[in-house]
Amino acid sequence: MKTASRHTADVDIHGYMQDVGRRARAAARIISRAETAAKNNALLAMAAEIERESGTLLDANKMDLDAGNNQGLDDALLDRLELNDSRIKAMSEGLRQIALLPDPVGEITDLNYRPSGIQVGRMRVPLGVIGIIFESRPNVTADAAGLCLKSGNATILRGGSEAIHSNRAIAACIQSGLKQTRLPEDAVQMIETTDRAAVGELIRMKEFVDVIVPRGGKSLIERISDEATIPVIKHLHGVCHVYIDDKADRDKAVKIAFNAKTQRYGTCNTMETLLVAQGIAGKILPALGEMYQEAGVELRGCEATRRILPGIKSATEEDWYTEYLAPILSIRLVKNAEEAIDHIAKYGSAHTDSIVTEDITCARRFLREVDSSSVMVNASTRFADGFEYGLGAEIGISTDKLHARGPVGLEGLTSVKFIVLGDGHIRK
Amino acid sequence: MKTASRHTADVDIHGYMQDVGRRARAAARIISRAETAAKNNALLAMAAEIERESGTLLDANKMDLDAGNNQGLDDALLDRLELNDSRIKAMSEGLRQIALLPDPVGEITDLNYRPSGIQVGRMRVPLGVIGIIFESRPNVTADAAGLCLKSGNATILRGGSEAIHSNRAIAACIQSGLKQTRLPEDAVQMIETTDRAAVGELIRMKEFVDVIVPRGGKSLIERISDEATIPVIKHLHGVCHVYIDDKADRDKAVKIAFNAKTQRYGTCNTMETLLVAQGIAGKILPALGEMYQEAGVELRGCEATRRILPGIKSATEEDWYTEYLAPILSIRLVKNAEEAIDHIAKYGSAHTDSIVTEDITCARRFLREVDSSSVMVNASTRFADGFEYGLGAEIGISTDKLHARGPVGLEGLTSVKFIVLGDGHIRK
Repeated sequence: MKTASRHTADVDIHGYMQDVGRRARAAARIISRAETAAKNNALLAMAAEIERESGTLLDANKMDLDAGNNQGLDDALLDRLELNDSRIKAMSEGLRQIALLPDPVGEITDLNYRPSGIQVGRMRVPLGVIGIIFESRPNVTADAAGLCLKSGNATILRGGSEAIHSNRAIAACIQSGLKQTRLPEDAVQMIETTDRAAVGELIRMKEFVDVIVPRGGKSLIERISDEATIPVIKHLHGVCHVYIDDKADRDKAVKIAFNAKTQRYGTCNTMETLLVAQGIAGKILPALGEMYQEAGVELRGCEATRRILPGIKSATEEDWYTEYLAPILSIRLVKNAEEAIDHIAKYGSAHTDSIVTEDITCARRFLREVDSSSVMVNASTRFADGFEYGLGAEIGISTDKLHARGPVGLEGLTSVKFIVLGDGHIRK
Repeated sequence: MKTASRHTADVDIHGYMQDVGRRARAAARIISRAETAAKNNALLAMAAEIERESGTLLDANKMDLDAGNNQGLDDALLDRLELNDSRIKAMSEGLRQIALLPDPVGEITDLNYRPSGIQVGRMRVPLGVIGIIFESRPNVTADAAGLCLKSGNATILRGGSEAIHSNRAIAACIQSGLKQTRLPEDAVQMIETTDRAAVGELIRMKEFVDVIVPRGGKSLIERISDEATIPVIKHLHGVCHVYIDDKADRDKAVKIAFNAKTQRYGTCNTMETLLVAQGIAGKILPALGEMYQEAGVELRGCEATRRILPGIKSATEEDWYTEYLAPILSIRLVKNAEEAIDHIAKYGSAHTDSIVTEDITCARRFLREVDSSSVMVNASTRFADGFEYGLGAEIGISTDKLHARGPVGLEGLTSVKFIVLGDGHIRK
């Protein structure tokens, strides 16, 4: 990419990053007013380029995989690092889907006349420059660049050093797409150096970067949000709950509790703790416990749970706080919805929590009182996802309260400003 | 207030603040689900209490004013510190107006069926615990407490030490209102100690405080946002512009440019720099310059301006960046709207900027491209205000891009979570 040839990054990381920042800021002004068609054409051109260059991408990826193997990276990491035909196809399809989404930029809402005679409304606007810091998965390069471009932002990407060849190859396709449609190439820049100091610069360049989106493990995100002086859209972790109320429909409860745990183990919206009302536990847990055990899920229960499922391990205090991301589930019996809500408030991570109940009063209360980014009734926590919610794609799931909560799609990458229309109006 | 009697704040600020935080967090859960009528009744009871206790408030305020006089506080500060009958009336009226505003909490929007069969929508929810740090103006106590309460948040208030007696007296009225309506008294707490270490604790109690709103001068706000580890809704400063396009209506231009500067000098939405298209400057500036000079406004111009208004001072590069908050105005001639937009991007503070033009193409471009929290056409920048915008009241004007931009009313003190309604739905 452009930045590589011009700088000896190792020598002067600060100067290099300042230059990246300055150019991103300049590109942001142009991209913020780009027409929707231009942005969509660029996305389609990128998608085509990624498919055309799939051989190059696979070669580059092989270099990363070989290096990773030599360094003894674990299998999970190597799996995330790997590109193959279907993953390349998914990248280009992702870009095409983003092209199909409505353009959020410039949307005017709530434009109303005020008593003074002025009209006041809101216009949706890009955030400006977005810094994306991510680990291993090279497909993030395409997803993130696509979402930021469509939402009118300039992007600075910083991928993991283990994926550097793959990321460069994907970035070259993105650049080619921008070039073909005459959008500024600086609208998407990838940091060329793998020096960690570049991250330190990126998260403190207040004058050039408006928001940081880290994508990766909890430790990466914690480190970045501790050190950043720029706002960070955080996705920390998901300790998600399903609460089976004593007014639950038994079949729905079993189906949802099983799906929320076992449909995928490694995702943030997977249930980690099952809460069951005492009144219904005896009717639900024996069958459900058997299903889990057949699926290879290790169960850890409170004392009351273990009276119903005598064979299982005892859950410790630590278990209630834990995001296993693995075939392990903690189970606790509670008196009622109130106790379930209290448990979630204390141990949960404000990600996604679901109640199974046929009682509308109880459902309304749970919806209102559980303070999580997604709160559900009679549905699996696994639905907490940008695609499932109709946001089209997501750059992450925010567990913050300010700005964006839950799946962050195009709208989460924008802000709103006030617009005022008058006809010579002055303040009295 | 409650906190005072229980603690020797001077001895253990950390322990004291932790206790304040813990109690705020507990109160936040209760206040977040309080019924609208309960919150409104509390606001009305507070208003009545403030009027009933106006004598007490004036006595307490006299103590602060006397102390301020003895310490030699300047007149502007003493003016901000002063309570009088009309300011007390304004406080209670403010609370009554907040009671009349619609309750934002629990509002559900965009509830739609998805292809999977689940319904996905958004519910507006309180932020949790809000820390307000403010200087001198004691009326902020009532405004801030009222807005936070109506939006379902618990509040921790920290006023300036120069207003401590006034703030305590107002806080007692607020407490009395909460007590009369059986809402938790901890929903509004005032920090009793004037020790600065308490602020340091407040802005770092991540587990107990969700957002900090500093209200005061730029230096206070910069210090707090530099040191805070909790998100801050910032209002830094307003370097606001009016751009008079060459297609402007002359009368509107003169009226707006005069009003934007002179209607009040000390407010953040006052124009600080006037930009005039070269093609119209000769027709506008002579008359307008005379009006400013009659009003006692000191003018500082670029060279081209000084050829039209020869008597005025020369503006320095520094002037274009300056928020005067005083009867001083810098004036610059520009070629066209594009150059005006560039000037605003470089020197402005992204607060409020207005164009005067009859040309709709030019107006549309200005609205879209100027990246400020309020962008106006043919209206005075002085309209950038929560009341004028119909937000009811404001806790400040945010110059941030994330979360809240522009005047921050009830909505800016809330967030949205996703809600999902199913009927036993699981993810395939």
